[in-house]
Amino acid sequence: MSLLIVGTVAFDKIETPLGKTDKILGGAATYIGIAASYFTNNINVVSVIGDDFPKEYSKILSDHKMDTQGLEVIPNGKTFFWEGKYHTDMNSRDTLATELNVLADFEPKVPVDYQDCEYLMLGNLDPTVQRKVLAQLKTRPKLVVLDTMNFWMDIALESLKETISMVDVLTINDEEARQLSGEYSLVRAARKILTMGPKYLIIKKGEHGALLFNKDENCFFAPALPLEEVYDPTGAGDTFAGGFIGYLAKTNDLSFENMKRAIIYGSAFASLTVEKFGTDRIAYLSPVDMNTRMKRFKALVQVDIKLKD
Amino acid sequence: MSLLIVGTVAFDKIETPLGKTDKILGGAATYIGIAASYFTNNINVVSVIGDDFPKEYSKILSDHKMDTQGLEVIPNGKTFFWEGKYHTDMNSRDTLATELNVLADFEPKVPVDYQDCEYLMLGNLDPTVQRKVLAQLKTRPKLVVLDTMNFWMDIALESLKETISMVDVLTINDEEARQLSGEYSLVRAARKILTMGPKYLIIKKGEHGALLFNKDENCFFAPALPLEEVYDPTGAGDTFAGGFIGYLAKTNDLSFENMKRAIIYGSAFASLTVEKFGTDRIAYLSPVDMNTRMKRFKALVQVDIKLKD
Repeated sequence: MSLLIVGTVAFDKIETPLGKTDKILGGAATYIGIAASYFTNNINVVSVIGDDFPKEYSKILSDHKMDTQGLEVIPNGKTFFWEGKYHTDMNSRDTLATELNVLADFEPKVPVDYQDCEYLMLGNLDPTVQRKVLAQLKTRPKLVVLDTMNFWMDIALESLKETISMVDVLTINDEEARQLSGEYSLVRAARKILTMGPKYLIIKKGEHGALLFNKDENCFFAPALPLEEVYDPTGAGDTFAGGFIGYLAKTNDLSFENMKRAIIYGSAFASLTVEKFGTDRIAYLSPVDMNTRMKRFKALVQVDIKLKD
Repeated sequence: MSLLIVGTVAFDKIETPLGKTDKILGGAATYIGIAASYFTNNINVVSVIGDDFPKEYSKILSDHKMDTQGLEVIPNGKTFFWEGKYHTDMNSRDTLATELNVLADFEPKVPVDYQDCEYLMLGNLDPTVQRKVLAQLKTRPKLVVLDTMNFWMDIALESLKETISMVDVLTINDEEARQLSGEYSLVRAARKILTMGPKYLIIKKGEHGALLFNKDENCFFAPALPLEEVYDPTGAGDTFAGGFIGYLAKTNDLSFENMKRAIIYGSAFASLTVEKFGTDRIAYLSPVDMNTRMKRFKALVQVDIKLKD
């Protein structure tokens, strides 16, 4: 099935307790697309970069089956840049620099060829920009997944709520779920958020896993894989989303059972991303790497419980 | 199979954001025994109380199949008392009062009838006291489970390590695993702790679930059930341990597969405990309550993933 990804393509500069990088390839669409490429071939990207974006980074995208017709290049523009430093626990970080650059005036243009996409992943962006993408589509996709963050809740809550009302799956973290709902209990938060439009809510808890809720009060949990060492958490959430929607686009099955499998795949891919800096691990996975990781993941969660009806 | 539980029987006074209690029934052995009673009949308790311990509390213990021959009553003694107040997130608490009372001079006496127990649960106590119990047993139990806490790591590390070297399963929380091993990564922490004697390590992460490790680097994760409301986390860890060892004592199967089931049962029982103050929920479960909860738990974790060999 065709998958359209809208989100940032960026430069990141990252420091963690285990090392630091120069300016490297980053951005939500980058991680989402790379993860999805292990499941499906038909991937289109709408984003914006400056003409400072190196050819070798474009090649990483196209090597991962991403059509870049929708990757607008702004002449004399500078690509979005983020610099951050993670603390020891890797759950918190300081942003040292955010240079929006070409992202500041991003007007998404969805090429005609992309306007009938069947699966749509809206990476974290201004909710107004996310709606402009939806407005350009000829047909409603089978599934629209939206990622966002507390920043938009702080400065553009009504706009964000309008976008949320138009999507099928919302992915946010636990603190964001609490902020958006005003409820501390994640069960209550989920119930409230699922009255705002989405049919499914994924609450990401970083190293503590992810919860999937639907409107029928079904709840499924996928843990994060305990790792020997986390080198760089950057992109873990986007990799999760990319694995999730990539698996769904491949299988084209939107049952709750299949969504459960999709978040297990998303979690397994996220666990790979964090094992090296930037895209260094996730961009170079072999089929054996993936199968080995999925087996560890399956062992982590699989248990046979027999109960009376 | 016969189960011996050694641990505190106490008074607790608890305040949480949702209410507070007077002096109520508490203590590690209390919660462990109540949870285990839903699985097995043959439960013996070694502990100490004062003669201020009310008959109705003793009745709660005996109603839950606990033989109290080993529950020493100190004339004119006062029962161990703990008072605490939980913060909004329920993961942290302030201890307002700890009155050791009869626990200060506790010399455990294991009645002859208990000395051939097949399953032994050593609740959190001075590691010297825990070893005194082991020394009184006629035969080595099939399984010894040890619970402890950071307090003993701070003031009696060498004694604690000696006790740890004598048991089969150690249960501690994530911060304690880091403190005991000097490793931040829980995978590395587990590997190191499993060289100290135990065959299995359970790392409890409160609302973030629990991890089971064995020496063969197998790792299994059981989540905590997301709840509508947590009234009182007191006793959740002990209830978990009681459900875990109770299920093992009932099934008498020490395979890793069965340990996985046991920690799922432990987690399900812990999720019940916290829904009311003290023992008010866990002490009054019907078979329907338990089966309903286990079904929710099964739905939370169960996923069907097919992989290539």
